[in-house]
Amino acid sequence: MRVINFNAGPAGLPLPALERAKEELLDFKGSGMSIMEHSHRGKQYDAVHEETISLLTELLGIPDTHQVLFLTGGASQQFAQLPMNFLRPGESADYLMTGVWSEKAYDEAKLVGQARIAATAVQPDKKYVRVPRQDEFQLDPKAVYVHLTSNNTIYGTQWHTWPEVGDVPLVADMSSDFMWKPVDVSRFAFIYAGAQKNLGPSGVLIAVVRKDFIARGRQDIPKIFRYSTHADSNSLYNTPPTLAIYLCRNVLSWAKELGGLTQLEKRNREKGELLYGTLDKLSGFYRAPVEKDSRSYMNAVFYLPTPELDDAFVAAATRSGMVGLKGYRSAGGIRASLYNAVSPDDVRTLVSFMEEFARKNG
Amino acid sequence: MRVINFNAGPAGLPLPALERAKEELLDFKGSGMSIMEHSHRGKQYDAVHEETISLLTELLGIPDTHQVLFLTGGASQQFAQLPMNFLRPGESADYLMTGVWSEKAYDEAKLVGQARIAATAVQPDKKYVRVPRQDEFQLDPKAVYVHLTSNNTIYGTQWHTWPEVGDVPLVADMSSDFMWKPVDVSRFAFIYAGAQKNLGPSGVLIAVVRKDFIARGRQDIPKIFRYSTHADSNSLYNTPPTLAIYLCRNVLSWAKELGGLTQLEKRNREKGELLYGTLDKLSGFYRAPVEKDSRSYMNAVFYLPTPELDDAFVAAATRSGMVGLKGYRSAGGIRASLYNAVSPDDVRTLVSFMEEFARKNG
Repeated sequence: MRVINFNAGPAGLPLPALERAKEELLDFKGSGMSIMEHSHRGKQYDAVHEETISLLTELLGIPDTHQVLFLTGGASQQFAQLPMNFLRPGESADYLMTGVWSEKAYDEAKLVGQARIAATAVQPDKKYVRVPRQDEFQLDPKAVYVHLTSNNTIYGTQWHTWPEVGDVPLVADMSSDFMWKPVDVSRFAFIYAGAQKNLGPSGVLIAVVRKDFIARGRQDIPKIFRYSTHADSNSLYNTPPTLAIYLCRNVLSWAKELGGLTQLEKRNREKGELLYGTLDKLSGFYRAPVEKDSRSYMNAVFYLPTPELDDAFVAAATRSGMVGLKGYRSAGGIRASLYNAVSPDDVRTLVSFMEEFARKNG
Repeated sequence: MRVINFNAGPAGLPLPALERAKEELLDFKGSGMSIMEHSHRGKQYDAVHEETISLLTELLGIPDTHQVLFLTGGASQQFAQLPMNFLRPGESADYLMTGVWSEKAYDEAKLVGQARIAATAVQPDKKYVRVPRQDEFQLDPKAVYVHLTSNNTIYGTQWHTWPEVGDVPLVADMSSDFMWKPVDVSRFAFIYAGAQKNLGPSGVLIAVVRKDFIARGRQDIPKIFRYSTHADSNSLYNTPPTLAIYLCRNVLSWAKELGGLTQLEKRNREKGELLYGTLDKLSGFYRAPVEKDSRSYMNAVFYLPTPELDDAFVAAATRSGMVGLKGYRSAGGIRASLYNAVSPDDVRTLVSFMEEFARKNG
């Protein structure tokens, strides 16, 4: 029996996408081979590669000015690869700080070149309960790019209004909320997202990049790290992670069948309202620290009255078939990740459990 | 029906490893989740991670001086990451040239720091039909490392005697023949191999590294690119490609059951002798350009009397259920890749076909 998976990532995937993978695992489309045994330069894999790009283009409405790249190494590698491509001596990039992941991105950039903090919502206790407000920004109009993390898995915050950054190229790490709803891709010079939340298994990163921005990248760095290398070769410069891309294809297919990003947003808002509604209703028992207009629809973080009750909650939920609810190591408490594969019914099961747990222990 | 897969990579995988993956794809060990849906910090994935390391350690006889790393980006990324870690200003690395892949490794190193060619077997036509001989080496005793490519997929050459490099750390890209037979790991400071030939799907790279060599790496490069980062965190600094590692586990398990690397070497030598024996016997029809003592047991390259016959051979083989025999773009001809998953019976089927084809067309 499948459990309800609230993992923060790698996360649960839609069952139809996994069933399709199982069905054709030993023999992909009558070829007598698994998709992972096909050459990345062969007809069969090529069709999967192109279909994955088409589905992303269609679902996100990616304009001709932009293109899709498949990269590896996760968001953590992009933290370094991005400044390697764009920061030349004497140039600087701006970072908007919202948590652990933006801090890591900023730290890597400083090892490559000049980076500055253009805004931060950090509190004196080093934690974050909101994203920065526009009136707090101190942007450098000459910055090579402005970097933000759209959703913060650890503290459970999310940008709900994109910052105004003038003519400076906007770069977003969307690893944990990519495709949770429609996005105006044209606002961004560079979007990147590790697959393991809303898209597929870990091991592939999807980037949606503005072509003229990529073309500006440094050509004096190793070829494998230049975005232009991957853009020019349609992500086939070297062997891509074919099985991971194939699984993304299955998940994107499922998303399309469900009705695309408009429908996913509706589902995700319903899920968020169910969960945050319950937290607000039971605020005498559960504490949700994030400010309301920064609440994440992907990762809801909350605390019970004591750490012991947090632990009892996680244990009881697991016994009821709900896994992955333990908060991040440094944050503690509870974290319910509500990625695209989690259904409204899954969240209804969770909130019923939460109501009962509060009644018994409150 | 499964075909016989002679692909150069991604390559065929042992059927039992794939069947095991299919069996548990929706529910790994009764957890109610696929292995790819498990957290990389959870108990279930951790057991897979450790088992994969244990199997590598046992099969290769990895001594305590060395450790296993799981990295991403394929060998192509290591071409750059290696010099980034070890080349400091004023220092130089030596490269032994045996084909396209060693050229790529050398070219990337030159973008990072100083690299020199210590030996090359290149011919005036830019091709290679053997590996360099020891008496051709011009080694720099102060080199930070000496780099070689153990097997060359494009030209079909392979090192059968490791070069003597004195006290200089020896680094080997073993992507296309890793684990084809036992190897004395202690001779190497750094071994790396993309998984997609003998180990699993594309998307993970396995490195076997000498701990004291890694510890000498530069600490002023981005954290994600430091080998020490991954060594210190047991390859869990960021989310590893969990599904790809799990599949390697299945393949390694199969290798162990088969009798380990001694048995694999026996199988692989039998396969190579069958194929090269046939090529030598029918040398009036088939031409095998590689010098005998540099012949690869993983990729046998040969030519028919005309390019038209090459094409007819590939087409007829495909109709007989044997795929992946077309030579590399720039090399032409035929390439039969005989990685670990290819059985002696598969090769017997191929050589029967070759004999018949020569009889009909010779």
